[in-house]
Amino acid sequence: MPNDEQLIRDLIAVWMTASAKGDLQTILTLMDEDVVFLIPGQPPMRGRDAFAASFSKMPLDRFRLEVTSNIKEIQVNGDWAYCWNQLTVNMVPAGSANTASAVTSNPQSPTSNPKVPPRRSGYTLSILRKKDDEWVLFRDANLLAPDPPTSK
Amino acid sequence: MPNDEQLIRDLIAVWMTASAKGDLQTILTLMDEDVVFLIPGQPPMRGRDAFAASFSKMPLDRFRLEVTSNIKEIQVNGDWAYCWNQLTVNMVPAGSANTASAVTSNPQSPTSNPKVPPRRSGYTLSILRKKDDEWVLFRDANLLAPDPPTSK
Repeated sequence: MPNDEQLIRDLIAVWMTASAKGDLQTILTLMDEDVVFLIPGQPPMRGRDAFAASFSKMPLDRFRLEVTSNIKEIQVNGDWAYCWNQLTVNMVPAGSANTASAVTSNPQSPTSNPKVPPRRSGYTLSILRKKDDEWVLFRDANLLAPDPPTSK
Repeated sequence: MPNDEQLIRDLIAVWMTASAKGDLQTILTLMDEDVVFLIPGQPPMRGRDAFAASFSKMPLDRFRLEVTSNIKEIQVNGDWAYCWNQLTVNMVPAGSANTASAVTSNPQSPTSNPKVPPRRSGYTLSILRKKDDEWVLFRDANLLAPDPPTSK
């Protein structure tokens, strides 16, 4: 049996792979029905259905989500855990084999295309719970912010 | 004996009162030595000393911190807990008896004074732990953002 920390790492890996594929149905299995997402400057996003509605608004016909993760800490206490993660979320134009074209996508950059969402990076602090032997995301504070423009 | 949820509510109340008084020494007793504060667009602030250095930079000779709190959720699991809180943080000019003058302090407002920090509001998601029978803040994600300008 893998231990709980490994199961949570697996959940994050599955989430990232599913995000890259735009596979909303898989992502929805990784969160509690009563999940809450907290984002700066916005009201709380409550529930799996609200996540689905938000995800569906992303222009995934033209872009693919590219997420990199650097887990800073996981603490498990029985059926509860928290995870502190460092993330970078990039929108890569669909059909592009690498991220070179997306690196210049920041709208604060003078060379940017305003239709390309900016690369965002920062931290998340998440609460997970184990329900029916499966870990699911329960509370998530998302502190990602647009990357500052790079000088050339 | 008060229960753990009440002890955590008390901790938050003491933190707010101490903030209003600029009483850094009391606030420091409410956090773990290895506390981490996460803030959008900034590197993690690690440790009690880093908090103290940051707190000391606030212009508390000219302003008083006014914090209001609306606790949305506390979940306790043994020696660990998390708390989701809604906060408003305002800088009230020292000597002012009420917040009327601070409400117009948003620098995005055309009538604002650029030297007055903006009112910030939003959510925090915090992990607390019980050490030596005392709850202390251990991880804190701070999602507060400047309030949008009010139209008049």
